[in-house]
Amino acid sequence: MEPLGIALIGCGTVGSGVARLLLEYPERLAARAGRPLLLRRVLVRDARKNRTVTLPHELVTTELRSSLTDPSIQLMVELAGGVDWARRAVIDSFAAGKDVVTANKALLATHGQEIFEAARRHHRAIAFEASVGGGIPIVAALSQSLSANQIVSLQGILNGTCNFILTNMSEHGQSYAEALQAAQQRGYAEADPTLDVDGTDAAQKLAILAQIAFGLRVPLSAIEHRGIADIQEIDLHFGRELGYTIKLLAEAWLNEQQLALHVSPVLVRLHTPLAEVRGPYNAVKVVGDAVGDTLYYGQGAGQMPTASAVVADIIDMAVGRAQKTFQTLRLWSGNGGDVTQRPSSTVRTRFYLRCPVLDQPGVLADIARELAQQQISIASVIQHEALDEEQGGTVPLVIMTHTARTGDFRAALEQINRLGCVAAPSVYYPMAE
Amino acid sequence: MEPLGIALIGCGTVGSGVARLLLEYPERLAARAGRPLLLRRVLVRDARKNRTVTLPHELVTTELRSSLTDPSIQLMVELAGGVDWARRAVIDSFAAGKDVVTANKALLATHGQEIFEAARRHHRAIAFEASVGGGIPIVAALSQSLSANQIVSLQGILNGTCNFILTNMSEHGQSYAEALQAAQQRGYAEADPTLDVDGTDAAQKLAILAQIAFGLRVPLSAIEHRGIADIQEIDLHFGRELGYTIKLLAEAWLNEQQLALHVSPVLVRLHTPLAEVRGPYNAVKVVGDAVGDTLYYGQGAGQMPTASAVVADIIDMAVGRAQKTFQTLRLWSGNGGDVTQRPSSTVRTRFYLRCPVLDQPGVLADIARELAQQQISIASVIQHEALDEEQGGTVPLVIMTHTARTGDFRAALEQINRLGCVAAPSVYYPMAE
Repeated sequence: MEPLGIALIGCGTVGSGVARLLLEYPERLAARAGRPLLLRRVLVRDARKNRTVTLPHELVTTELRSSLTDPSIQLMVELAGGVDWARRAVIDSFAAGKDVVTANKALLATHGQEIFEAARRHHRAIAFEASVGGGIPIVAALSQSLSANQIVSLQGILNGTCNFILTNMSEHGQSYAEALQAAQQRGYAEADPTLDVDGTDAAQKLAILAQIAFGLRVPLSAIEHRGIADIQEIDLHFGRELGYTIKLLAEAWLNEQQLALHVSPVLVRLHTPLAEVRGPYNAVKVVGDAVGDTLYYGQGAGQMPTASAVVADIIDMAVGRAQKTFQTLRLWSGNGGDVTQRPSSTVRTRFYLRCPVLDQPGVLADIARELAQQQISIASVIQHEALDEEQGGTVPLVIMTHTARTGDFRAALEQINRLGCVAAPSVYYPMAE
Repeated sequence: MEPLGIALIGCGTVGSGVARLLLEYPERLAARAGRPLLLRRVLVRDARKNRTVTLPHELVTTELRSSLTDPSIQLMVELAGGVDWARRAVIDSFAAGKDVVTANKALLATHGQEIFEAARRHHRAIAFEASVGGGIPIVAALSQSLSANQIVSLQGILNGTCNFILTNMSEHGQSYAEALQAAQQRGYAEADPTLDVDGTDAAQKLAILAQIAFGLRVPLSAIEHRGIADIQEIDLHFGRELGYTIKLLAEAWLNEQQLALHVSPVLVRLHTPLAEVRGPYNAVKVVGDAVGDTLYYGQGAGQMPTASAVVADIIDMAVGRAQKTFQTLRLWSGNGGDVTQRPSSTVRTRFYLRCPVLDQPGVLADIARELAQQQISIASVIQHEALDEEQGGTVPLVIMTHTARTGDFRAALEQINRLGCVAAPSVYYPMAE
């Protein structure tokens, strides 16, 4: 069969991994694709830069145009990252009659609709498995394997940097700063880790998953997100005492055609599959109305795991599956589903609450009264002696609530923080079932 | 678009689930398939039997012929089970110009080559996601999502009955007999559970996975399998003391184009993803050379989880993806890969060994000498006082070895069991990394 001609746009970490697979295993990939996959051009910013792959000299170029006009190239693989330039390159690729594979989550989370409409207008296809969860086939699971189901909920550990930091804090007793430094030393965190640790990266991935699983087009700004930078060791400690660990979860729940979604540190019960996801690994738990609970686990980032997902998309394009999926699903189309977003204040969940309180009688009664006023009942309480002389006479009062409406809990919290016996703002996290 | 006409062959537990999805959610499924999925006929043995789904009277039939000759039916969904009749029905379906979806693991494990060759001869396609792992999309993961990889190893908890029994034994202190009874009461085990508990069912599934992941056609008789019926509580107890639990694993490891595979109870380290798979759940850990470790988890059996996988295949057929996958992969073709089977005696692993020994000095020295003669070194030893007066002066000596060749370990074991100080046959299990 005729080979599939491929141009790589960008040859950084992931691009080098994709080039390695294409150049080092041509026979393996041709067998799975039913035709040869030919890397015909690699677009880079700096042709003289050292890379982890040796590129044949004649493939390397610094301009996009020659790939767009080359009829022997049918597929553009966008791994440049960033949003503005990539958006233009992808749309120009469709206009030039090329299909596109991308790993660019920021691009899809912000310009998904425009990108997909351009593909449809030009009768081309786009695949994006590597944009969420690295080597984990979560896009394929949601768009194909679970297609008999109405997805009911999603819970994902979608940021390996955060999971590495939280694992080191909870299992090796490191502080946030120490764990972040360890992540940077191992290459799991950028020099500026802001977009990872503040939850933005996970929110972008959640926006993509919400589109696939629920047909909901949700702007990034509409996804509430809390990060991990202010998580304290004391809460990991009390969490463990209650039988929980803390994970940064991207969550979505469907209820009567309304979807609530957020990114937040969440207390996850020990010895459940999500709690056992350690270090830089990712996992997504998906509940469908027919299949029940399922979970997908693997490395959520890194050169070869992400390249594995990109090349799977390339093979799907070569086989012709990706085009059929693209045409059938009509993702990011104007007429999505009839699912609308519901405020996360309406979500019902249990809460972990730690109030730094004065060490005096009656404190628990005061706090319990504020919770009761919002119809929130208490499941358990931990009240230790002062752990530390330096806390200036305050002690942590830790409460685990029964299921409550998030909005009611926040209203109670506001009142609690105003109590004279509460010495500093309380800390709270939702708890997974 | 034109509807896809479907005949169900068999309407037992899974068939009723598939019929429910097709009849109750036509709009949802049509949206995912890009065309209506029309259930046109349901073939049953007894038309008057009560089912968990209400079938329109005019769909029910007791003979196959009318479906084969009906040009408005393009897809036969074989859920009858069994081997001989199903084999005939599937081959006749191809001959009549129909594609096939099946959940029949026994059929594929024993007649895969004949079935696939018949499909190719008649230019039809077959899909079989539900044949392994129920609702877990392990067939799709291996045949599509991980297609950039050489799969290096597979480890699966593929039998929910066994996993339920082992979970109850290890976490609720039940005996094998009690746990089996609990499984039967909940519908997780058949009245005659032999094929589940002796490892045959898991071996059939492993044969299918070995074909997809490694292109190896392996007859069932060539897969060594041990079951769970002789697992004793004492070994679960000592395993836990060492930091392990026991799971029935179907395992395959590739080494220089040679594949070793077996089904066996294996000690799995606590707090790893496979160890946390409880009750009737299944999971498969797959290691690929690019993607690294991945894991897929969900309900491995049951009406709706399995129906979810069957209907995903039906949708893949309606979209046209399944046909492309079938044509490209050439599974069970005469010219498989160049992977050959390697005797499981060559597999290198650590072992758990429990010897019921006489309570006298020098015993450990005798056993250690036999292990040393086979170049096997000891990682740790547990030697408690006699647990039980009734054991008649014998005590359990528990040894965890370092990595050893399975054949060498078995040779040592034979010598150990001949020692005068060893009062009864020793018990051993391999240990997962």
